[in-house]
Amino acid sequence: MGKVTCDMAVSVDGFVAGPNQGPDAPFGEDVGTSLHRWMFEEPEANAAELAEMNSAGAFVMGRNMFGPGRGEWDLEWTGWWGAEPPYHAPVFVLGHHERATLEMTGGTTFHFVTGGIVEALERARAAAGDRNVAVAGGAATVNQYLAARLIDELRLHVAPVLLGRGERLFDGVGRTDLTPIAVRHTASVTHLCYGVGGRAA
Amino acid sequence: MGKVTCDMAVSVDGFVAGPNQGPDAPFGEDVGTSLHRWMFEEPEANAAELAEMNSAGAFVMGRNMFGPGRGEWDLEWTGWWGAEPPYHAPVFVLGHHERATLEMTGGTTFHFVTGGIVEALERARAAAGDRNVAVAGGAATVNQYLAARLIDELRLHVAPVLLGRGERLFDGVGRTDLTPIAVRHTASVTHLCYGVGGRAA
Repeated sequence: MGKVTCDMAVSVDGFVAGPNQGPDAPFGEDVGTSLHRWMFEEPEANAAELAEMNSAGAFVMGRNMFGPGRGEWDLEWTGWWGAEPPYHAPVFVLGHHERATLEMTGGTTFHFVTGGIVEALERARAAAGDRNVAVAGGAATVNQYLAARLIDELRLHVAPVLLGRGERLFDGVGRTDLTPIAVRHTASVTHLCYGVGGRAA
Repeated sequence: MGKVTCDMAVSVDGFVAGPNQGPDAPFGEDVGTSLHRWMFEEPEANAAELAEMNSAGAFVMGRNMFGPGRGEWDLEWTGWWGAEPPYHAPVFVLGHHERATLEMTGGTTFHFVTGGIVEALERARAAAGDRNVAVAGGAATVNQYLAARLIDELRLHVAPVLLGRGERLFDGVGRTDLTPIAVRHTASVTHLCYGVGGRAA
């Protein structure tokens, strides 16, 4: 069985997005490209981490990472990523409302799960087989999985910025010992990989 | 003129101390040695950073880093560090009450400053000459200096733990671009060195 991993691009002060996320600002106000510049400006220098991020056999994501809104699904909305999302694997989207499975170009299939984080993870594990399951975000979803001790390996991609406000990683997670696995850096990012709660390799 | 530096031992979730700091728990509850283990268990592996931390020509620290309490100074209290504090240099202690200068064994002299962070820094710069001035803590004091853009070089010593609560670094500092200077890690800590606001080398 693979690991449960989580890759998060994060500011030095622990934010994964600015305030007021929405269709015009998917990462919130005042964030711009500050958290993700390393992906676009140094793709070769960060190729190992980018490949690892995209190698999972299945993904889990929160309601707000898939799209804006809170109520019933807007059936016109098929995610932020256009016709061919970058997952190329089953993606289990958490939410409170049923929706039919959505098959996209390039192998991404969005499954809508109403049974909570454990059910979503179990379904993702079954879909991933021997490969890893990645908890893709956002922060609220990651924090729930961390608090439940369901993530094995946390990979923080720390961008050189303080955001000061926004969506904070680790809120509500509580005291947790981490096990250092690897540290690597390029000009625009520091990659910190930790095992969580002693479960990771 | 030297730089204004700041070394902070910090958890991955950005805390420099747990809640309820006091004489029996100078770093707060539930923290134990988690933030500082690298200093005691791996002094040789971290010798470069420890030497750099201790090399400043003068230090500035907040009221609560010098000792517990909030009102007039308790003249019996001479700091947490015993007769020979580890600074071996002038230390400018922020506070709201006058107190006579305190000369300790080994070259540490505590000066009590009531004129605020800029006055304390100016006096420390004058005392340090060509050497660096170090803002020693705690978090509230560091956050004030960061917000005022008075720190040139921020050196975070990131311990592999989430604390979940306590005294948070960066509260109130606001959006700040950082310039990566260096990254180094040992088995028990990751050292991240950043220039702040473009002022550092």
